[in-house]
This record gives sequence, structure tokens and C-alpha cells, in this order.
Amino acid sequence: MPSAEPVRPVRPAVATPAHQRAAVLHGPRDLRVSDRPVPVPGPGQVLVRVAAVGLCGSDLHYYADGRNGPNVLRQPTVLGHEASGVVLATGPGADRHALGTPVAVEPAHPCGRCAACRSGRYHQCPRGTCFGSPPTDGALSERVLVPEDFVHPLPEGLAVREGALVEPLAVAVHAVRRAGVTVGDRVLVTGAGPIGLLVLQVALAAGAAAVEVSDVSAARLRCAAGLGASAVHDAAELPPGPAATLADPAGFDVALDCSGNATALAAGLTRLRPGGTAVVVGNPTSDTTALPLAWAQRQEITLTTAFRYSAGDFPAAVALAASGRVRLAELVTATFPLEQAPQALETALTDRDQLKVLVVPGRSPAAGAATTAKEARS
Amino acid sequence: MPSAEPVRPVRPAVATPAHQRAAVLHGPRDLRVSDRPVPVPGPGQVLVRVAAVGLCGSDLHYYADGRNGPNVLRQPTVLGHEASGVVLATGPGADRHALGTPVAVEPAHPCGRCAACRSGRYHQCPRGTCFGSPPTDGALSERVLVPEDFVHPLPEGLAVREGALVEPLAVAVHAVRRAGVTVGDRVLVTGAGPIGLLVLQVALAAGAAAVEVSDVSAARLRCAAGLGASAVHDAAELPPGPAATLADPAGFDVALDCSGNATALAAGLTRLRPGGTAVVVGNPTSDTTALPLAWAQRQEITLTTAFRYSAGDFPAAVALAASGRVRLAELVTATFPLEQAPQALETALTDRDQLKVLVVPGRSPAAGAATTAKEARS
Amino acid sequence: MPSAEPVRPVRPAVATPAHQRAAVLHGPRDLRVSDRPVPVPGPGQVLVRVAAVGLCGSDLHYYADGRNGPNVLRQPTVLGHEASGVVLATGPGADRHALGTPVAVEPAHPCGRCAACRSGRYHQCPRGTCFGSPPTDGALSERVLVPEDFVHPLPEGLAVREGALVEPLAVAVHAVRRAGVTVGDRVLVTGAGPIGLLVLQVALAAGAAAVEVSDVSAARLRCAAGLGASAVHDAAELPPGPAATLADPAGFDVALDCSGNATALAAGLTRLRPGGTAVVVGNPTSDTTALPLAWAQRQEITLTTAFRYSAGDFPAAVALAASGRVRLAELVTATFPLEQAPQALETALTDRDQLKVLVVPGRSPAAGAATTAKEARS
Amino acid sequence: MPSAEPVRPVRPAVATPAHQRAAVLHGPRDLRVSDRPVPVPGPGQVLVRVAAVGLCGSDLHYYADGRNGPNVLRQPTVLGHEASGVVLATGPGADRHALGTPVAVEPAHPCGRCAACRSGRYHQCPRGTCFGSPPTDGALSERVLVPEDFVHPLPEGLAVREGALVEPLAVAVHAVRRAGVTVGDRVLVTGAGPIGLLVLQVALAAGAAAVEVSDVSAARLRCAAGLGASAVHDAAELPPGPAATLADPAGFDVALDCSGNATALAAGLTRLRPGGTAVVVGNPTSDTTALPLAWAQRQEITLTTAFRYSAGDFPAAVALAASGRVRLAELVTATFPLEQAPQALETALTDRDQLKVLVVPGRSPAAGAATTAKEARS
Repeated sequence: MPSAEPVRPVRPAVATPAHQRAAVLHGPRDLRVSDRPVPVPGPGQVLVRVAAVGLCGSDLHYYADGRNGPNVLRQPTVLGHEASGVVLATGPGADRHALGTPVAVEPAHPCGRCAACRSGRYHQCPRGTCFGSPPTDGALSERVLVPEDFVHPLPEGLAVREGALVEPLAVAVHAVRRAGVTVGDRVLVTGAGPIGLLVLQVALAAGAAAVEVSDVSAARLRCAAGLGASAVHDAAELPPGPAATLADPAGFDVALDCSGNATALAAGLTRLRPGGTAVVVGNPTSDTTALPLAWAQRQEITLTTAFRYSAGDFPAAVALAASGRVRLAELVTATFPLEQAPQALETALTDRDQLKVLVVPGRSPAAGAATTAKEARS
Repeated sequence: MPSAEPVRPVRPAVATPAHQRAAVLHGPRDLRVSDRPVPVPGPGQVLVRVAAVGLCGSDLHYYADGRNGPNVLRQPTVLGHEASGVVLATGPGADRHALGTPVAVEPAHPCGRCAACRSGRYHQCPRGTCFGSPPTDGALSERVLVPEDFVHPLPEGLAVREGALVEPLAVAVHAVRRAGVTVGDRVLVTGAGPIGLLVLQVALAAGAAAVEVSDVSAARLRCAAGLGASAVHDAAELPPGPAATLADPAGFDVALDCSGNATALAAGLTRLRPGGTAVVVGNPTSDTTALPLAWAQRQEITLTTAFRYSAGDFPAAVALAASGRVRLAELVTATFPLEQAPQALETALTDRDQLKVLVVPGRSPAAGAATTAKEARS
Repeated sequence: MPSAEPVRPVRPAVATPAHQRAAVLHGPRDLRVSDRPVPVPGPGQVLVRVAAVGLCGSDLHYYADGRNGPNVLRQPTVLGHEASGVVLATGPGADRHALGTPVAVEPAHPCGRCAACRSGRYHQCPRGTCFGSPPTDGALSERVLVPEDFVHPLPEGLAVREGALVEPLAVAVHAVRRAGVTVGDRVLVTGAGPIGLLVLQVALAAGAAAVEVSDVSAARLRCAAGLGASAVHDAAELPPGPAATLADPAGFDVALDCSGNATALAAGLTRLRPGGTAVVVGNPTSDTTALPLAWAQRQEITLTTAFRYSAGDFPAAVALAASGRVRLAELVTATFPLEQAPQALETALTDRDQLKVLVVPGRSPAAGAATTAKEARS
Repeated sequence: MPSAEPVRPVRPAVATPAHQRAAVLHGPRDLRVSDRPVPVPGPGQVLVRVAAVGLCGSDLHYYADGRNGPNVLRQPTVLGHEASGVVLATGPGADRHALGTPVAVEPAHPCGRCAACRSGRYHQCPRGTCFGSPPTDGALSERVLVPEDFVHPLPEGLAVREGALVEPLAVAVHAVRRAGVTVGDRVLVTGAGPIGLLVLQVALAAGAAAVEVSDVSAARLRCAAGLGASAVHDAAELPPGPAATLADPAGFDVALDCSGNATALAAGLTRLRPGGTAVVVGNPTSDTTALPLAWAQRQEITLTTAFRYSAGDFPAAVALAASGRVRLAELVTATFPLEQAPQALETALTDRDQLKVLVVPGRSPAAGAATTAKEARS
């Protein structure tokens, strides 16, 4: 929303150079940090100095395979779409944010005019683009251009680097909203990766009375327990099967699969109460998924899906993080400088103990504690 | 709702005999019409003289296999749950309906007290019973006992026999409500059996701008076209596959599968616009169903299910039929007297050209035109 | 949605002149038809030759008082926002509509980027403009510029002039959607002006089992009866007062006030069943309205409001009109050429027997039958 | 839900006497504690030994005026409907709760069969009764009979006496659900009495990013701040008036009036963002309420109402209290033994500093700390 007070531009301390460093994917496992021109903000755009970029599953798919689902890398593309930073310069008419404002970056940009956009479903805009989805360049660089309506100011007290986790948090907010979690609900989360751990926290923030979590990793389950899970389960002990029956309706109200694993999805689905809702949050790992649909129909289950985030999800994510109801920093398990982006991707791809790996352009990971929003403003 | 005026009981013309005829299923393909005691209405119950009973898929499953999904025939049981008739006698405190009132019978009776019942989902009551679901006797008999709140008066102008189709019409109303069809929607119905033809009509009545129908039977497609389908498709020419893509969002808003066939369900699912809704209406013919879930997630599709009918569906069905917006009589393709119930079931099971087969206790099918509600009152 | 086939521009028959005639409001009751420059379509815009413009209450407020609610006329402004026409020329990049396409014009144009727009509530865009809302010029002229996404092609069989009624029909669609009318509902419409008569028809198209209408005018009630009202009531015989009580729940499911009259709104509100919904559709004629809120709370009534139209309402309106489920032509009670726009507004303001008054730029009202979409294309 | 294990009845320590003490209202300000017969549980009923009864506004209306809205005291009636206790005996077939189970009592009992009950709106059952609503006796006595489905087990860790506040907490849960509060919402609560303070807490538990509270009492505002309000306002400094306008959309998403005061309701309504929702929670103090409806329509505001509680609200209230997200004990400002019930009502009526006044049958208030659920079980 527009600020009631006039924006007082802060003069940038240093002139913007002509070139900057960026991590460019040329092919499977061929990521090169190289020079790219620094872009100039056009009308309604802001230039953001990137503070941190989180790596996520779709980055890893492009890095490992040169594709993610139907999207294929066909030309060298800068990766990265989970970004935070500070407003460095503004284009003509871009008056919503003062220079120096710490922000989370919403990376998918719709046309604003089509039927999907008009109906509040802008994440399904057929004309839209998304950072790091080839051929659109991403945020793994020192600076990035963003439409001013797609940067979200971070409140004081929230570290700018943590702002890079607002994007996956917005995914979790969207998923919990799609699930329709309401006060008193009993919720099951299958899959305790970064998204699952955020969905756990958002479900609790949305009033769930109990949130149980399953995963194959004991370490991730410990993390879930530390973040408020009311119970954790080894996935092997949560087999699918119509466990909840019409004669025993005490199932979960909502099950959110954050693993992409068909067995985990079925395990959640079959533990719902009659009329319950399952949500596909993690990307299914195969094209088709076998589901116990005959059982689901007798129970009148709804199976819905969540894709990215849409209207209001980013602002809600910022608010939840700012209020302390969702803890972001605990998900960060490794941090790399931009020049080591290839190592960061290798680590994220191969080390299953990692949760969220951050790349922090502009400084070395040894530079100390994360910058807080307050520091960024001063 | 209770009548404002005092109910004036009409004296029954003849005394109720001690025994009546009923069609009792003893095992697969062993249906016997035999004598059963005439029940006496208890508190809050009415005795209905049965005018007609429609046969549906679950009757055929019991008849052919001695089971329907998880429900198994273990003792001789009267079949039939799609019934209409006339109120013949009332038990203590059952003052909602005057004797002689023509009614549609709602066959599933919940406890009214459990969590499912209280939340408006009485069709999921774990303590509930349903006519013709073993071991609960059904309506294929001369008279049947019903709780007074589960008979629905038929308005003048609607034939009493047509009232037997109010039950499948309530299924269609429930499915269309679960789908959330709204004015202007484009709808696809896969499967043009009795339920599909009713869903077609209810979707139009709910404001759908266009309803397209697919089936393997040219005869059924002709029937669909006659009932208002904007286009009909041979199912073979409607293969599944991600036909609608993010780059071409002009898909259906809603797809309702009334066939139970996995290929038809997938064909509908993959023709939805982003954010569209698919509904499982027909009982899936296998325990598990393979679905293109990865595609569905990118499109943020919702797949929901519809089971029977719930609050308000029967009254809405009666109102739609009474207003002429849904035509019921055209679905009736054969009528048998009660003594020929075995032949009726054989016909429904083996003759794929049949839509709805009716059994009419109390008179021979040669007795002429169907009784209208008006005649029943006089 | 984008056409799959390439658009073949039809060469305009005649060159566009430099000036055109337009009806400009200079002050209360001071409307002057004068020369204005013909605008040139910019990027994404189309130039529409105006076929017809309907007059509505807000036009009359500006004409009579120089203001409409908080909006005040401060400079000469072209009136009119209910328009249809034919695409005459297109600006750069505006490739959605072929020249010669008959269209309905959506007159309110949002920014597409703010929080309201993103959430699917573009009719509440604080940066938006609307034809004929000063200082934005309206459509009472020979040609008008429209963003290409805000003209809606009219299907064959719908007269281009009738397209001017798509805008009020979209208001009705929006109101019925806000009301949540579903199959089988009993609906009350208070006020049988053009909007009330359209709401009546849309409610029926949305599956209402019965729609009753009240008004002070016997002529309007006759029109309502002719358009399908199940009962009509002299407003004087429908006084407010808690007529429906907890002991007698047989009230309406939905009441839509299309009169703006506080007594009519209260009359509808107090006839709702417990849990029913009332919708304010007509603009309230006074700033504050006294409502029986204590009663409404015990009945848990919802009172909601409808403002213009939003995502999907125009396409649904076009579809309903094209399908014949809503009849538009019967609402047109007078037609004037553009040069007689002042008389048209005087007539609409002073003659209470009028329903919809049309102004048809470019031809005299004596020129005969309305142009159909088919003719426009040939 | 039914326990999977057989219930092992605990033998009551002492025989149930023939008479018990009860607080009976004979007329305005004429409350007498006298002997009444101890009721015997019938089929499906449990006898609850009452641990505590909270006093609320409707009790005070009956006590002060002999009426509450349309309900009038016409015969001596036991007051009280906010009760908790321990299961003392069970009637035939009432097997859901073991003897000794500490429970919260849901005081309104619907028929379970009518259209309202079936649709999940059992709180609007026209045949229903409610404890302490004349002529139905209430819970201000030593023991009370309840249908087994209307007592809700209290989890360990929640004091039995606090269970008396589950009823007003269920009111707050219902109100927040009616409001549709979702993660990230900005909420305004006008009125910081017991209901307002519970609504504040439930809105936070439902994910509200910020909840602001207004009241005329500085003490209540301090209490609100202590319970998590993000800002508190003297009601005098929050005048009604269209403060939020279309040009400045930064209003509240939801406003819940818990004061019953028309000025407070209007103050909340006019601070909503476009499309926001206001909820009438407190009983309006006059029959009609003047509302800025013309403004509300331009903003497309929804005004809804909340009456008592319905499906799932009691279980959610118990879960929220058990999880510690809602603090109940801080609302209790005075406790009286049953023999001093008249003084308790006088105190609640006349001392505006009181929040929740409890009456604790069976022991003196000097008896020490509240019984916890754990102790009750031992």
C-alpha cells in the first residue's frame, strides 16, 4: 500500500558500476559465475542489491538435469528466485519504496490484464515470467530488477538475509490457505524439508490444534519437533491404507504432502476424516500418481493442489515472520558467497542433511552475523 | 417445513394387511419376491405405499456380486433405495405430512447427533443406515417405513412415479454443488448414464453457459443432446492428455466424471482451465486410479468427490423437477411390476441400452399412464 | 482468451474523421452535444464505434445534481458508461479482436497491479477510472477508446444494440454471485427497475426455485411476471417487520434489494430464513440506513453489498444473454439519437414508466430494427 | 468421538441424594437458592456434577429485567448456561464418557432432524432449547442433566473450573470463523469485555498479524494489551466516519464488534479496507441500528452476524484452551459459592470492573486453588 508520507530518497553511497557478477547456468552441472551488465530500472521498476538467495528444488532440477518439469534450459540463464535485498535505485514513476528499504522479492511477474490475473489467480498468468525459469534470468547476481509492486518491505527486526526465506514461506502460506486450515484443526504434514517445516509452522499459526509430521529423516523430524510439531513419525511407520474408516471418523482434517512422494500422499489421504482435504504441495516426482480414489469418494475427500503463491501470500508471509510466529533462521544450514554458487548448488543437491542453502552476493560468508532490517535502514 | 395448518388425516380406503410382497436378495443373482410382514410406524415414522423404485448401479452390484465396494450381503435383504410413494399411515408424533401426500423417499438415515451430522455432513454419519445397503432392508416392496423428516412432498404436476428419480437427481444436485458450478461456467460431463444426464441438466439449471458430454454410446449422446448438451463427444475422441496448457487457458471450468472410468476422469481433468475443478461422481471401477497429478499441480487443479447427497439436496431436487428445468420421465426406459423384479434387475444389468429401469409395486406396468401427484391427492 | 487463429483485420470502409459528436455535461441539467477530437488508439487500445449507450441511475444523478455520491462534476465531461459497438481500429499490440468485431464495453479500468487488483477485486482499484465518472469522459459519443482486454465480443444472434445492456447485466451477475444463489433457492427481489429485472432473470438462471419481486409500480411488476417471477407483490403490502421467526423458518434464502429504499431492504431482510443473506444492490438513497440488527443477529443473517462487477462477470453476462436465458431487449423502453441525448436524459429522469433508455450514436431511432451481431460482421 | 476402548465406569464415591440446591429466578432481581429434585439421567443423557458456572450478559438481562430480547421469564427458572463439571452418572446407552470425566457443557440442544440441524446450523434449530433460557432450567445448581453428545471432555492440564469459560470461548471461535479471519489479517475488536478479550485471543490464534482493540475502560484495554493486542484505543478516540476511503485502502480486513454499541460498530465498519468484513458479535443494545450503508456499498463491505456457536466450535474452543493459545483464567475476576448466587449476579450487574464472575457449586470460594482436570480424574 502507498505510504502516507512522502518518500525521501536516500542518495546511494556509491555509483552503480556497469557490470556485476552473476551465476549463469549453461547446461546440466555447468554453472559459471561471470560478468553481466548491471540493468537500469525502467518505468515502475526498482533495482535491488541482492542480500541473499535461497536454493530450492526447482533450482536443483535445472542444475542437475537442465530442465524442471516441462520447462527446459535452452540458453544460458541466471538461476535463483528466492531473494531478498535492499532498494538501490528506482525507475520513473516507481515511488512506492524509499532507497535503502530492505525487501523480499516476489519473483513471478504476471501481466495484470488476462482472465487469470483479473480473477485473483495471477500465479496462473499464461503471459507471466518467473526469475530463474529459463529463459528469464534469476536473482543469483549482485543486483536484480523488480517491478516495484513485487518487492515487499521487511519490517524492523527481521534480518535482510532471512528475507530470502519469505518466498518459500509464501509457498507455505498459500498451501495452508488452499487447505482451508481453521482454528482447532488436526493437520498432518508429510515431508519435513524446508517447505514442510514452514507449512508446519504456518498451520500452527493458522490455529491448528495439532500438527503431526512424517519424514524418512530423523534429523528433519527432530527439527519439526523443535518447531512445534505435536508428534513426529518415521515415514516407514505411516504406511498408506484406509486407516480411518467410516466407523471411526477420528482422522485428520487436513493432510499436506510436502514430499512429492506418492506413498506419502496416499498415507496422508487415507488418514483423513470424512470430508477432509489433502493438498499436493511438493512437486510429484512422477507424471502420474496412483490414488485410492474409490475409498476417497466414499469418504468424500477433496484433493487439491497448491502452486507457488498468489494474492496476499507474500504480505502474510512477511507478517508471520515479523511476528515471530514462524522461525526462518533455523532452516538455514549453509551459506556461500556468490563466487561459490556452484559449490552451493552441489551441496544442496548432494548433501541430504541440508535444509536451506543460502547464497549471499556481495560479501563472504565469514563476514559475520546476518544484516538485520534495522541495520540496513541505518 | 411444518405446515401452518393442522393436518387433516385422510382415512385410508382399506385396512393395512399383515403381509406384503417384497423383493429379497438371497445371494448373487438370487432375488426372490416373497411375503414379509407389513411394518407398523413407530414414533416419528410414516408408512409409505411405494409407487415406484428405480434401479441403480449399487443395486446391480449387490445383485450381480453380492457386494458393493466394502459392503457385503450376509443375510437376505430387500433391495432398492430410489423410491417414491404416498403416505399411508403415520406413527406417534409424526405430524408433518397428511395421509395421502405423494412423496419422494430419502433413503439414508443418519443419527443426527454425531460430529458429522452436526456439521451438516449427515451423509457421512458413521451410525447411519441406507435402504437396500445390507443388512438394512430397502424399498422394493409394497410399503416401507421412513422417518417423517426423510420423506419429501412432491408438488402438483409431478407424477408420483417420477418421484423415484428424485434420489438420483439429488445425487446430481449434490455433485453440481460440490463442483461449485456458477453462472457462465463451461462444464464437461464424462459419462451419459442416468446420473450423467441428470448432472448435465442440473449444471444447466445452475447457470452453466455450456455443458459438453462424452460417452461411448451414441444413443446416450443423442439423449444428452436432446436434454440440452451444447456438444457431445464420442469418448474415444476425447483422450486424456494435457490438452489445455498454461499457454492456452481456454479449458473447462468444471469437469464431472459420471462414468467411474479412469480414462474419462483423466480426459476431463486435463481439459480444465488453470484453477478448475474436477469431481468424481461415478464410483471408480478400480481401487486405485492413476492421475496426472504433476500436471494438475502446475495448473492448480482441485479434484473433489461427491458421495450421495446431504443437507438441502433433496428439496432442491424436488424444486428443480417441479419447475420443469430437469426432465425425469425421459430417463425411464423400462418399467416392471414388483413380481417381475428379478427380470427388472437382469434387464438393468445386461441391456446396456437401458437408462433407468423402474419397478412399480402395486400395479402392473400395463395399467397405463403414471399417476400424477394431483391424482394421488384426489 | 486469445484466438488460436491469426486475426485478419478488416479494412475500415471509411477513413476516420478528425472530429466526432459527443454529449458533454457542463453542469446540472446542462448537457450539450458538441464536437470533440476523435481519439487515436495507443498501445493495447481499440477504438470502438459506439452502437448504443444505456442510461442508468448514476448518469441521472450527474445530470440532475452534478454529482453522484462523493463524486462531483468539476469540469465538462462526456457522460455514459453502458456501451456497445464495433471495433473500428486497433493500437499497437492490440491483437485480440479483429476489426468489425461487435463488442460490449466494460467501462471501469483498473491499474492491474495494486493489492485490490491482484486479489481479484479489480472493481475496488483505488487507481481505477470509469467511463462517465468525472473527470473521465464516457461513451456518449460516436467513438470511444477502450483497453483491448475490456471489450467483450458479442456472439452471433445477439444484437449489437442489446450489447449496451451487458453492463447492467454484469451488475446483476455480480449481485447474484455475491448473494451465493444456488440451485433450489427461494429468492426475493425488492425493486423492479432495470437492475431488479435483470437480477430476477440471473437468479432464475442460477437455479433459484422461486423468485418473488416487489415494487411500487404495477407496470414493473407486470414486466417482472412476464420475465419469470414466481410471484409479484405491491411494495406497500410487503412491510418490514420480523415476519419470519425462529419458530417458523420458512423464509427466503436470499433477498436482493435493487431499489435503494431502506424500507424495501428491511422488508427483505426480515423475510429471510435463519442464516439467510441480504444484498444491497441498489444505491442506498440516504447516507445512513436503520436496520433491525438485533433481530438479524438472532437469526444470524448476513448483509452484504454489491458494487459494479468484477472478474468474470462480463463474460458470464455475455454468455447468459447469448443463451437466451436472460432477455435484454424487453427492458428497452425508449431510444434516442445522439443529437437528442439531452431529451433522452430528461425522459429517463422524469418519466417513471421508463425502464432502459438507449442513446444510439450514428443513426436515427427511426432507422429500424436493431443491428444484430451477425449483420455487423457481414 | 467414541473411544476405541470400552469405558470402565468408576463407581461414584457417594450415593446421589434426592434433592440439590439450585439458584432459581422468580422475577426481576428475585433470585432464590432453594431445593430442587436431583434429576435422573434418561437414555443418552449424563448427569454432571457442576464445578463452575460463568455469568454472562443474558443471565444479567433475565436477572435485571425478567427478559432477554424476545424471551420472557414466565415461571421460576434456574439460571446459568456457562458450565463445567464432572460426569457423575450416565443413562441407558450413554457410553461416550467414563464416570469422573471432567467436561465443558454445551448448553443449547437442537432437535437434530430439522432443516437447520441437517444443514450444520443447529444453533438455529427452531425446536431447540438452551440452559437458562426460560422456561428451560439452567446450570446454576449442584448437578445438571446433559445429552452425552453435548458434554466435551477437558484435556489434562486444563482446570475444571476454567471449563466454564469454554462456552464464551466457543462464542469467540464461532465469531472468528464467521469473520473468516486468515493468516496475515489485520483485525479490529471493538469492546473488550469477556467476549471481546476472547475474540482478540482467537483472532491471534487464527493467524491475525495484528489485532487492535478499543473500549471505554482503561482497565479492560490494559487487559487486552496483556493478552496480545497490538494496539489499544480509547473508544472516544475512534469515532465512526468513513476514515478509510477508496483512495487509501489500508484499512482493517475484519472488524468484530463485541460491545453491542452502534457507534462502536460503525467505527469498525468505516475502518475496513474495501471488501472487508464486519461482524456483529455483541448483542445490539437497540432494536434498530443506523449504519453508513451507502459508504459500505461503494467499498463492497460485508456485514455479518454471529449467534452462539455451532458445529465444531466447542471442540475447537477446548483445543485452543488446552494448547495455551487462549488464556481463560485471567478473565475470572470474582468467584462465589452457589449459596451466594444472588450476590454474584448483583456484582456482575453493578460492578463494571468485573470481567467474568464465576459461581462454584459444591464448595466455598475459600477452598483454594481451582481443581485441575488431572485432579478430577484422580
